[in-house]
Amino acid sequence: MHRIRKGRVELRCWYLGAVVAWLLSAGPALAAPVTGHAAPDMLPVLAALALILVSARLGGALFERFQLPTVLGELAAGVLLGNLGLVGFHGLDSMRTVPTVEAFAQIGVLFLLFQVGLASDIGKLAAVGLSATLVAVLGVMVPMLLGFGVSTAFLHGQSPLTHWFVGATLTATSVGITARVLGDLKRTTSIEGRIILGAAVIDDVLGLIVLAVVSGLIAAANAGRAFDATGLALIVAKAIGFLGVAVVAGRWLSRVTFRFAARLPGEGMLVSFALAFCFLVSFLAGRAGLAPIVGAFAAGLVLEDVHYQALRARDAKKRDLNELLEPLSGFLVPVFFVLMGMSVNLAAFATPGVLGFAALLTLAAVLGKQACAAGVLGGGVDRLAVGLGMIPRGEVGLIFASIGRTLTLNGERVVNDTVYAAVVVMVAVTTLVTPPLLVWRLRRG
Amino acid sequence: MHRIRKGRVELRCWYLGAVVAWLLSAGPALAAPVTGHAAPDMLPVLAALALILVSARLGGALFERFQLPTVLGELAAGVLLGNLGLVGFHGLDSMRTVPTVEAFAQIGVLFLLFQVGLASDIGKLAAVGLSATLVAVLGVMVPMLLGFGVSTAFLHGQSPLTHWFVGATLTATSVGITARVLGDLKRTTSIEGRIILGAAVIDDVLGLIVLAVVSGLIAAANAGRAFDATGLALIVAKAIGFLGVAVVAGRWLSRVTFRFAARLPGEGMLVSFALAFCFLVSFLAGRAGLAPIVGAFAAGLVLEDVHYQALRARDAKKRDLNELLEPLSGFLVPVFFVLMGMSVNLAAFATPGVLGFAALLTLAAVLGKQACAAGVLGGGVDRLAVGLGMIPRGEVGLIFASIGRTLTLNGERVVNDTVYAAVVVMVAVTTLVTPPLLVWRLRRG
Repeated sequence: MHRIRKGRVELRCWYLGAVVAWLLSAGPALAAPVTGHAAPDMLPVLAALALILVSARLGGALFERFQLPTVLGELAAGVLLGNLGLVGFHGLDSMRTVPTVEAFAQIGVLFLLFQVGLASDIGKLAAVGLSATLVAVLGVMVPMLLGFGVSTAFLHGQSPLTHWFVGATLTATSVGITARVLGDLKRTTSIEGRIILGAAVIDDVLGLIVLAVVSGLIAAANAGRAFDATGLALIVAKAIGFLGVAVVAGRWLSRVTFRFAARLPGEGMLVSFALAFCFLVSFLAGRAGLAPIVGAFAAGLVLEDVHYQALRARDAKKRDLNELLEPLSGFLVPVFFVLMGMSVNLAAFATPGVLGFAALLTLAAVLGKQACAAGVLGGGVDRLAVGLGMIPRGEVGLIFASIGRTLTLNGERVVNDTVYAAVVVMVAVTTLVTPPLLVWRLRRG
Repeated sequence: MHRIRKGRVELRCWYLGAVVAWLLSAGPALAAPVTGHAAPDMLPVLAALALILVSARLGGALFERFQLPTVLGELAAGVLLGNLGLVGFHGLDSMRTVPTVEAFAQIGVLFLLFQVGLASDIGKLAAVGLSATLVAVLGVMVPMLLGFGVSTAFLHGQSPLTHWFVGATLTATSVGITARVLGDLKRTTSIEGRIILGAAVIDDVLGLIVLAVVSGLIAAANAGRAFDATGLALIVAKAIGFLGVAVVAGRWLSRVTFRFAARLPGEGMLVSFALAFCFLVSFLAGRAGLAPIVGAFAAGLVLEDVHYQALRARDAKKRDLNELLEPLSGFLVPVFFVLMGMSVNLAAFATPGVLGFAALLTLAAVLGKQACAAGVLGGGVDRLAVGLGMIPRGEVGLIFASIGRTLTLNGERVVNDTVYAAVVVMVAVTTLVTPPLLVWRLRRG
């Protein structure tokens, strides 16, 4: 004991000496004499990551306190950070374009779609059958047509392809938000719940196909190639084909991979092989001309719990993949949403017509999904609840919009600041109104 | 049930159709028409990450099977991937320089040092008292002098600073490897175990100070400034000063941060705030002219379990920080070691004298640490066991060497291919011989 206490006293003296030395050393001659050995670009990355993580959590907590979805808070934190220039503070402007941070965000969105894929499963997708498929098809087509109409009315002089792209951002229901609300109300297994979840999964896939088609047509038009029906059919075939091959070959690959990994000694096999699998399928999707997120979703869809039971049994805490992925997505997914928010240019709202465009786009998004009610077959189902449950757009709409920002048509960005700002408003409003509306309808039933 | 089965049949047909569509779509006209919308640089990143993760685990598993440390297997996998050019395969050459992958590796090594810091604690550091400090000081000084001597004898025409840098790579004992061997033998709390672990922590800090001093002197010399004793003293003061301030202010900051975070609603607070804290202190270390890893270690050292008890209690599984960080480091730490291995140029061994240099450097590393035995005060302690326990160099030696590769002196890299190859051999051999030697000595006692 004496030795311990003596050690502590020594250590305290050492602190004091150190603090004094630190204060003494603060001469300008010393300004970063050793910076040469830090990988030169890591410091901005570290600062940006620390700031983004804290802002995301603060924004999320603030929204959570008012019973609003966390994801909106992260988005709002990003909008705030990205628009400090409006009040004259430009210290963070460089943060928007740190390529490493963007890469982290991209990996984050892969993790998100991988987890959505893991949470969905092919059996459930099939079990809800025809109703879910019809709901999904109507829920993709009607909002897309309405979005096309709104865009045509507001954005003059743009190519029809741009209008179709705007329509495409209205297609996909956010599985995450819907699932969370249904879970909170313990209605996940109700008939309405199963139809909504099944349809949300299917319309994710349909939305990704729509995205592939529209993006492909834009890329073709941009390269000066003509719009041709064969090309369209081939793109659709390719998109469905990739998913089909990914599903069939991916199930086999997943089973084989984890059976092999289970024979290897050592720890941490489950996370590494699951991530490698996700990255590989995402890479293949990209090579096949689809967005890498399609691959990540497919990887999650085909990876089933039974494939890795042997590996899970070896884990000291018997953690499943979702539990292991949670810290990874907890780190990187907020980076994606904060960066998404940061790319919203609030100054765009000053442009005449943007607010009206955003309002009509949001209306198209909400009303368009009410067509889903017509897709429900048989009786005893609360059709309005299904329509309301399909409203939230969330992350997929934002991902579509962010992809649109990387596409150009006749030298202009397909998703310009106006469209992007309007899509963010649409996502925010649809995400915001769904929880109260769905709670009201389901509690009433 | 009928509906489910019908759904499955439909789904199977859908697969078949999809596969056919996929096969039909494989025309050259379709080659990646949609690639425009994938963030253009993500595909190489995804491919590299998938390959690195799998190779790391395969290498680790192979070494584990022969009862060798996993980290060596990851290194070996990297050496293999990085030297496929020797057998005429250059397909992976571009992988070495994907900046995003390098950034992931850098974040990985931060996680590693953060976890080492978390595993150490200031109380234990103080409790082992004078013995550990003496053991650490001897274990830093003697290998450094021997390394300087070996480098002087072998590397003709180099600046003395280069020789000191080579000496510096021999200083730091790998806490991780030592701790793992002691834990496997259940000797962590024995008197020898506590002295070794305490000394390993202290010599990490001493090693980082030595690194800061030598790097600072090299940077000064490179900028044409003279070697001056005041500059040396100031660098030492600054290095100790940063750690002192980080320890005193960091403990307070950590307590305040997590007390604040505990009041915020929402999930995932613990991981986000811990990572933000780690990134912030690493950033500050970098801004103070130290390596960011020093900051990550300091962040782990001051972050104590009690600071986040309230947050941990809220977690559904009551996970501590180490458990939450495990998937993150499981993902990124192997990336660091594989990249380290990839930067070993096997062709360097063809240069006359490299093997002799590597052998003598390894000998200096092993014998130098036996001086530690003289630092143990009092009786009843197995001094040889302490000396053997201090042998493994592991990650810190590699980190030093990788930092040396970024430093130049008179237009040449301080750590050239020869030195780097020799350091890797030294790390591999010291890491390899310690487990059997320590097991032999402690079982005998």
